[in-house]
Amino acid sequence: MKAPVWTIVLSVVTLALTMPATAQTKKAQPAGRPAKADAPLVLKKQGSFFVGGETKTIAATGPGTGGDVTVNQMYVQFQIPPRGDRYAPVVMVHGCCLSSKTWETTPDGRIGWSEYFVRKNRAVYLADQVSRARSGFDAAVFADVKAGRVPPAQLPNVINATHQVAWSVFRFGPTFGQPFPDEQFPVEALEEFNKQVIPDLNALLPNPNPTWTNMAALAVRLGGAVLMGHSESGFFPEQAALIDPSGIKGLISIEMPCPTLTPAQIATIAKIPTLVMFGDHLNDMPPGGVANWAASFDSCKAFVAEVNKSGGDAQMMHLPALGIRGNSHMLMQDRNSDQLADLVLAWLDKHVDAKKGTR
Amino acid sequence: MKAPVWTIVLSVVTLALTMPATAQTKKAQPAGRPAKADAPLVLKKQGSFFVGGETKTIAATGPGTGGDVTVNQMYVQFQIPPRGDRYAPVVMVHGCCLSSKTWETTPDGRIGWSEYFVRKNRAVYLADQVSRARSGFDAAVFADVKAGRVPPAQLPNVINATHQVAWSVFRFGPTFGQPFPDEQFPVEALEEFNKQVIPDLNALLPNPNPTWTNMAALAVRLGGAVLMGHSESGFFPEQAALIDPSGIKGLISIEMPCPTLTPAQIATIAKIPTLVMFGDHLNDMPPGGVANWAASFDSCKAFVAEVNKSGGDAQMMHLPALGIRGNSHMLMQDRNSDQLADLVLAWLDKHVDAKKGTR
Repeated sequence: MKAPVWTIVLSVVTLALTMPATAQTKKAQPAGRPAKADAPLVLKKQGSFFVGGETKTIAATGPGTGGDVTVNQMYVQFQIPPRGDRYAPVVMVHGCCLSSKTWETTPDGRIGWSEYFVRKNRAVYLADQVSRARSGFDAAVFADVKAGRVPPAQLPNVINATHQVAWSVFRFGPTFGQPFPDEQFPVEALEEFNKQVIPDLNALLPNPNPTWTNMAALAVRLGGAVLMGHSESGFFPEQAALIDPSGIKGLISIEMPCPTLTPAQIATIAKIPTLVMFGDHLNDMPPGGVANWAASFDSCKAFVAEVNKSGGDAQMMHLPALGIRGNSHMLMQDRNSDQLADLVLAWLDKHVDAKKGTR
Repeated sequence: MKAPVWTIVLSVVTLALTMPATAQTKKAQPAGRPAKADAPLVLKKQGSFFVGGETKTIAATGPGTGGDVTVNQMYVQFQIPPRGDRYAPVVMVHGCCLSSKTWETTPDGRIGWSEYFVRKNRAVYLADQVSRARSGFDAAVFADVKAGRVPPAQLPNVINATHQVAWSVFRFGPTFGQPFPDEQFPVEALEEFNKQVIPDLNALLPNPNPTWTNMAALAVRLGGAVLMGHSESGFFPEQAALIDPSGIKGLISIEMPCPTLTPAQIATIAKIPTLVMFGDHLNDMPPGGVANWAASFDSCKAFVAEVNKSGGDAQMMHLPALGIRGNSHMLMQDRNSDQLADLVLAWLDKHVDAKKGTR
């Protein structure tokens, strides 16, 4: 007896739900072997430099003080593999309360996306957001408040993400200290992860955020680059494209709310291949948390639809839809981070560097 | 007619003063060729991690706020060359108002000491000081002042080094914008250098400075390491040794004031090979500047003498005494930075890794 179509569909779905994640996504892996983390790493070049920045004159607070400082510069650290010139470089920008450490060694000691991408022939540029880490910040207001020139209320709201808030926002589990049963984040290394979480001074930034401008300028300087953002910076690639799309070859946005854009803005984005990624458990957090990832997901589904409606090439990569379960908001550090990197690399090969052939 | 001894001495001195710096110091170079910056860089391993850190509970400022944060952790980024296990690794710590960027690409685009050392078979660990850059800082007081819980006067004194102060303290020239005739700092890249200068929040730190404790702990974790500091952190290697010398194989201190130590403290330092470096023009800055490098030099000469009097192996490497002229306070970024790195590497070979033979 021939099985009706719906039972075949159901069987396939059931199979997908019960197969281990690695087996399920084999088809989605790009050609070529996974990067070997223990083989020597060969670099054509590495280094660091700054993008942007402007001179600001600060008031004297005593003899020998006052003068010019540089603000709004963005620190960038890069590594170029021997064959890196053949593919578009990738600029990675971290999220709230974090630094470029996000993309380096994972909390449990595996290689991060930055080295993984380099081992897969992609030049990688890690940018510390303006006002964070090695990019520095505009400190004038602190001196002004200390000296009584401006009231304390004008101090920026420094975001100091607690362990409790981070656990919830980064979706490590439904309640603090209790991971989801299929949690992919290496929660045994939580203490090391908490050390990555540093104060966020973005409230000091002017509008538009200089990080957006600097990301667009970096893409031009590199003669073309893919911009990647995460969480707080998730939509920064698009914001950079709305300032100057000329150097931007691709947009990769990981887990953030997507704003509603004007038709003209959508038309600009529609000229650039766009990938949006979301992990698992978007609906499984208790209500009232700092982040509402289900709402963010919905807003980004609408954004992707708008871009495609305007003739663009936008893709929503919702990992559970690929059968990949348990990913947190810090998916680049999750246990299956190599597998997820391979998905991004496959997307890059197909949507950004298709004309260059596969490696 | 045989020339009297004093005329020969005078001739040698005259010759030394008129020869170009590179020729003068050829003898001081270590065995082996200079590192080739354009050859591929091969790494056995690279990554980043944190040392130290403790949990602090912060007050709630509204619903969902308050909880635990991690403070006093130190971010460390490392690269290990293929033969790096054969020599003691070097931990480099930057100075005031700077980050680990200090040791990376120079402002004029050459490789910095970190990559140069790696290319010379030394594993290098770059640490961002606690309260700076990717190490983050304790932000509690900013929220407390903003909320009116503590007075503005309790805000830390954030050091915001102006371009004018930096020019003077880093000895780029006698007056702002005018370099010394033999200045080795690449002043044409001053704008790029100024972008490295970021606000210094060390006034937030407890005593003893957690960076000292973390540096000592890092040396233990690495199974032995050489600690290097510069300027604000110049004496940090010694401070770390006074906390726990057990992992410290060498101390390299670049341009800082040296405090007076007790005989017991000197005895601890005297067990560890120690190198102190100073550049040129220590007496050529106008009086009244933020830094008095001539006084710092004198204090460190006294320190070196005390260590040697106690049977230690301490060396004052005053570059002009080797015929090397024009070096600034940022000597690791000066035009002759490779040459200076080779001097340090030669010292390491001889004083720290002598038992392992030369490479």
